[in-house]
Amino acid sequence: MVRWARSAYSKKSDGSSVESLDYEVIENYAYKEEQAQRGKLYVGYYVVVKWFFALLIGIGTGLAAVFINISVENFAGWKFSLTFSIIQKSYKQQGSGIPEIKGYLNGIDTHGILLFRTLVGKIFGSIGSVGGGLALGKEGPLVHIGACIASLLGQGGSAKYHLSSRWLQVFKSDRDRRDLVTCGCAAGVAAAFRAPVGGVLFALEEVTSWWRSQLMWRVFFTSAIVAVVVRTAMGWCKSGKCGHFGSGGFIIWDISGAQEDYSFEELLPMAIIGVIGGLLGALFNQLTLYITHWRRNYLHKRGNRVKIIEACLVSLITSVISFGLPLLRKCSPCPESELNSGIECPRPPGMYGNYVNFYCGKDKEYNDLATIFFNTQDDAIRNLFSAKTIHEYSAQSLLTFLVMFYSLAVVTFGTAVPAGQFVPGIMIGSTYGRLVGMFVVRFYKKLNIEEGTYALLGAASFLGGSMRMTVSLCVIMVEITNNLKLLPLIMLVLLISKAVGDAFNEGLYEEQAHLRGIPLLESRPKYQMRKMTAKETCGNQKVVYFPRVVKVADLISILRSNNHNGFPVIDHMKSGETIVIGLMLRSRVLVLLRSKVDFQHSPLPCDGSLPIRHNFSEFVKPVSSKGISINDIHLSPDDLEMYIDLAPFVNSSPYIVPEDMSLTKVYNLFRQLGLRHIFVVPRASRVIGMISRKDLLIEENEDSSTVELQSTNSSAM
Amino acid sequence: MVRWARSAYSKKSDGSSVESLDYEVIENYAYKEEQAQRGKLYVGYYVVVKWFFALLIGIGTGLAAVFINISVENFAGWKFSLTFSIIQKSYKQQGSGIPEIKGYLNGIDTHGILLFRTLVGKIFGSIGSVGGGLALGKEGPLVHIGACIASLLGQGGSAKYHLSSRWLQVFKSDRDRRDLVTCGCAAGVAAAFRAPVGGVLFALEEVTSWWRSQLMWRVFFTSAIVAVVVRTAMGWCKSGKCGHFGSGGFIIWDISGAQEDYSFEELLPMAIIGVIGGLLGALFNQLTLYITHWRRNYLHKRGNRVKIIEACLVSLITSVISFGLPLLRKCSPCPESELNSGIECPRPPGMYGNYVNFYCGKDKEYNDLATIFFNTQDDAIRNLFSAKTIHEYSAQSLLTFLVMFYSLAVVTFGTAVPAGQFVPGIMIGSTYGRLVGMFVVRFYKKLNIEEGTYALLGAASFLGGSMRMTVSLCVIMVEITNNLKLLPLIMLVLLISKAVGDAFNEGLYEEQAHLRGIPLLESRPKYQMRKMTAKETCGNQKVVYFPRVVKVADLISILRSNNHNGFPVIDHMKSGETIVIGLMLRSRVLVLLRSKVDFQHSPLPCDGSLPIRHNFSEFVKPVSSKGISINDIHLSPDDLEMYIDLAPFVNSSPYIVPEDMSLTKVYNLFRQLGLRHIFVVPRASRVIGMISRKDLLIEENEDSSTVELQSTNSSAM
Repeated sequence: MVRWARSAYSKKSDGSSVESLDYEVIENYAYKEEQAQRGKLYVGYYVVVKWFFALLIGIGTGLAAVFINISVENFAGWKFSLTFSIIQKSYKQQGSGIPEIKGYLNGIDTHGILLFRTLVGKIFGSIGSVGGGLALGKEGPLVHIGACIASLLGQGGSAKYHLSSRWLQVFKSDRDRRDLVTCGCAAGVAAAFRAPVGGVLFALEEVTSWWRSQLMWRVFFTSAIVAVVVRTAMGWCKSGKCGHFGSGGFIIWDISGAQEDYSFEELLPMAIIGVIGGLLGALFNQLTLYITHWRRNYLHKRGNRVKIIEACLVSLITSVISFGLPLLRKCSPCPESELNSGIECPRPPGMYGNYVNFYCGKDKEYNDLATIFFNTQDDAIRNLFSAKTIHEYSAQSLLTFLVMFYSLAVVTFGTAVPAGQFVPGIMIGSTYGRLVGMFVVRFYKKLNIEEGTYALLGAASFLGGSMRMTVSLCVIMVEITNNLKLLPLIMLVLLISKAVGDAFNEGLYEEQAHLRGIPLLESRPKYQMRKMTAKETCGNQKVVYFPRVVKVADLISILRSNNHNGFPVIDHMKSGETIVIGLMLRSRVLVLLRSKVDFQHSPLPCDGSLPIRHNFSEFVKPVSSKGISINDIHLSPDDLEMYIDLAPFVNSSPYIVPEDMSLTKVYNLFRQLGLRHIFVVPRASRVIGMISRKDLLIEENEDSSTVELQSTNSSAM
Repeated sequence: MVRWARSAYSKKSDGSSVESLDYEVIENYAYKEEQAQRGKLYVGYYVVVKWFFALLIGIGTGLAAVFINISVENFAGWKFSLTFSIIQKSYKQQGSGIPEIKGYLNGIDTHGILLFRTLVGKIFGSIGSVGGGLALGKEGPLVHIGACIASLLGQGGSAKYHLSSRWLQVFKSDRDRRDLVTCGCAAGVAAAFRAPVGGVLFALEEVTSWWRSQLMWRVFFTSAIVAVVVRTAMGWCKSGKCGHFGSGGFIIWDISGAQEDYSFEELLPMAIIGVIGGLLGALFNQLTLYITHWRRNYLHKRGNRVKIIEACLVSLITSVISFGLPLLRKCSPCPESELNSGIECPRPPGMYGNYVNFYCGKDKEYNDLATIFFNTQDDAIRNLFSAKTIHEYSAQSLLTFLVMFYSLAVVTFGTAVPAGQFVPGIMIGSTYGRLVGMFVVRFYKKLNIEEGTYALLGAASFLGGSMRMTVSLCVIMVEITNNLKLLPLIMLVLLISKAVGDAFNEGLYEEQAHLRGIPLLESRPKYQMRKMTAKETCGNQKVVYFPRVVKVADLISILRSNNHNGFPVIDHMKSGETIVIGLMLRSRVLVLLRSKVDFQHSPLPCDGSLPIRHNFSEFVKPVSSKGISINDIHLSPDDLEMYIDLAPFVNSSPYIVPEDMSLTKVYNLFRQLGLRHIFVVPRASRVIGMISRKDLLIEENEDSSTVELQSTNSSAM
């Protein structure tokens, strides 16, 4: 528990002093430590721990995925009885969790999302819901699980359950924690789909708002570890120890044997698939939005019991439909079997595969609806993707399944169970894709067209139309199907479906985040911001200052009078002019007020030589907690008469913008750097210096004179 | 040719006025246009053109790749005779071009890199050098070709060759041009390796310093177009119209039939491959650095003739070695052929494949050194990667090849021919990979180990050790070999080799960029920046101001007295105080001085009602040109006595930082936003307002009160 030297604002010209308690201080602090006590070793230790944690996240998420898979395959009978009691104690609003994680990485900490009990709830909840056969997948929860593991590691365990360890408490800045959570997200996708590169790209494209190339490497490492862990577990399970898990191999739905070639005429039906995907995806987003809205405002206000009844009801309906509908469907006779295809019809009892004999009268018959409906989702998708099974499904069955499953997916999304939208999306998409494929086969009468290929494209198009990802989705689709030759087609279908979907609404996660009131900053500034200046944005909102040395009673009354989170601190120079010495955070003031150790009797600034009496970690708000409120502070009348000098605790150089800067520029600054507060200041009266590229190149380049260089006129000059 | 209204600085509170001529002005300008003349249509047109250009880049780069491939396969005889005359007229320093493109996207315009004649030189140069059998690849030049096509489109053609079109001149800001060049880079990689996703990631990871998610989508689109173009051309070529091109199919080195499984014991030799890759890669970077240095300082100073002689000499040595060495090697007897493997020994004459009979005495013999050496690079790699050919190569041959080819690659890199480093890197890596594989086969005595798999890992490790890419390289390796199952192994090998290489030096492109004096800003600020403040960085360097209304003679003398590129402009308020009204660029001043239309007789500010007499495009410097110099300006004595009001031309809100901000923060600001100049200003005396996240969310969220939110303490507060 190291303490650092107090240095007042006025002495800070060396830049390494206590600026604030944001991440740079940590680094300065680490730097000071390094000089003072442990030398370069400490920095090395810090880096090693970062990588070690990335390793642990990989292992942890991989193991969680394996555990869930094994449980789903083997203990599907558990279903809701045990799991609901756990879910109840964990984070209340379940669902996919991805909008909240997206929010966290965008800069908003939703209460309760990254706790230990959320982790446990997610693991058992997804076993229950996926094993129970609901129309949802386990990949959303796995992303959340990865993020939880990362966050718990980052803050050194869970204090509430006494699982915390001093040794682990290395990361005290939110930036490091956020980096870990990004690793966790990638690990989740990598574990869910056994798609390590897809995981990296998912973290890059969908989740994080803020990216550095060093982080990319660490995320990549985490994903690779997940791949190795999952693969090792699968190898270990091969001998049949873990039930069905692992039988698919590392690639979940291997269609490498599918259509190798395509002709120009096929581009039209493929474009149609893209359009359908965009339309159905946008519709899905809109319907889930309405239903979630209704659910929040009417249903869930009646308490937790209603949530559980609802989930059970949905589960019951799902079971009835997936068992009942196939019963109503007549069985079809088996096709003439090709000896080399290796596909038996009907499939042998107790095995997984195509051509399910479901209460069929004759021996050589199968029920095509049961083949999709009365199967695990993984197997249903494998069947839909399968090549060399032309005419397995009738259009009527596929259409029935599409309508029913689409409705079930819409209704299930947003119930109080952990839900992923990838697998249901793939189910929906591959169904209509296969439908289109059937018509193509009939229309073009060519034999080398495989319906399974169209099913794959359909799956890509629906996911593109609903989630609006491009690169990561593309890579995930390739990684889970092991068919690189279809990559250009997947790319084109995705582009079309995303474009069509974007014409209607935003992506699924963004819509859900809006609905839950998570204020995501989009990557593109709004169009009307061009006409606005920074000053106009602040409007007439009065700026509430803290003086440098402030009476405790005044501090309390200022905090009570508004709900701002950041306050400028001003000081008076000897000439009487005021000067802004920095930014003070509400949370930090509350910590100071609660500890009381910095109170002083005199209204004069402290001289800067006293050691600060605070441990750094006191100022760090635990993730997902509510932090201290002003109502938690209890002060005696004597305390209220004391003073406090804020200078050692301010962030002495927050980012500033001139008053007439256009809001577009401000927005880019805010989002690219992940800021929380920007000071709008008057136009400067003079310039002390200019910094240009050459000032930032500290290393000397001996040959720099030999090439003629001209700066490109960069984005924002 | 639209002109926009002059509005003086003092009237600019609406924020949409003429700030400067950087990209935001363009957008404001477009916005004004939209209101004034064409409505929303113009904005739509702008977006459509962006996409259309992305399409053109894709098609252009794809066709260039096809043209080069066909030419290399068929006209290898041309070699240097024709091509050198073209190279001489094009951009002088050839080589890979990637360091320069990297520099351009990082914000530095090297003279001559993106011209029409560079494009032509690159195309014919790479045909000559690759077709001539030098130890280099065509992928570096293809990246450069993609970037050239993009840049030429962006500035509306080449003025010099009268290929320019008014219609194409839509993009007037450097930001849009830079985005196009990013698309071009991705297109180049996608075309070279037929690896569209790899192209996107290459652009993301290696080339661009600055990334937005909108851009990602467009880059993705360009890559998809390239894939479709290349694939279509290959389909058209299948009938044998284009020689050998296209025979490999869309995946260049398909090894999908290789080793499917691996055991734990194999991880050790694989890790060894990673370490070797790191060591050899770092050594390669270091050797090429020394040689390039020597070449620049001694050899190339003697003129172009020396360059050509050098290239011919290298070519001659390469030919002698690749023909001569196999002659010295004894032939081996063919292995007992397995009927199902489909590999004939020796290969039939006129075909491509394994087991080359090269002056062998007997019929059933082959020369293993000739199989690698006396072959096109593509085929040599295919042979090295090939499975089911255990014991094809002797350790002696592989070692000979490794040493010779490594030396040739080092020597060839940096000659005056367009060179890519990917293919040679794959050659080198797969050779030692296969060597290790041979020992593994011998040591573990397991039959399911394929030497080809180790060759692939070796290739990945050498590229990782030399170029230090991770994600994009990984995806490229998977895309060119079509073997997803090896992905986790490739990832681990890459991580090891990158880590080992990083211990010695920087990546190949960074080292070369340093050597050529391209001042790249790395993604991570230097460690010592933590101790420095913005003010210290500026040092005692005096700030040179322009007054708002300035005498032309003074302007000239200020410009002559220093070589700064940006100048603060100050004005005097009625109270006598000075105020900084913005930033003026040297290039813009020079344009004003040359055109003379804004000269005025009175030293008083103009009243802001006159229209500006400049077309916007006058201020845009063409890419790769030197721009105007102060020596190009010729003014009469009368002109020198005139005045000019700079206010309408300044960037009125450049980014500012307070004097005591730590340099780490400044660096992040500079790099993340791609800036050229930052003003260091004194601490503010007051704060006009605070901007926080909620001020930037212009849309209302009706439900935002229902969830408890707390901001995460973001990176830089």
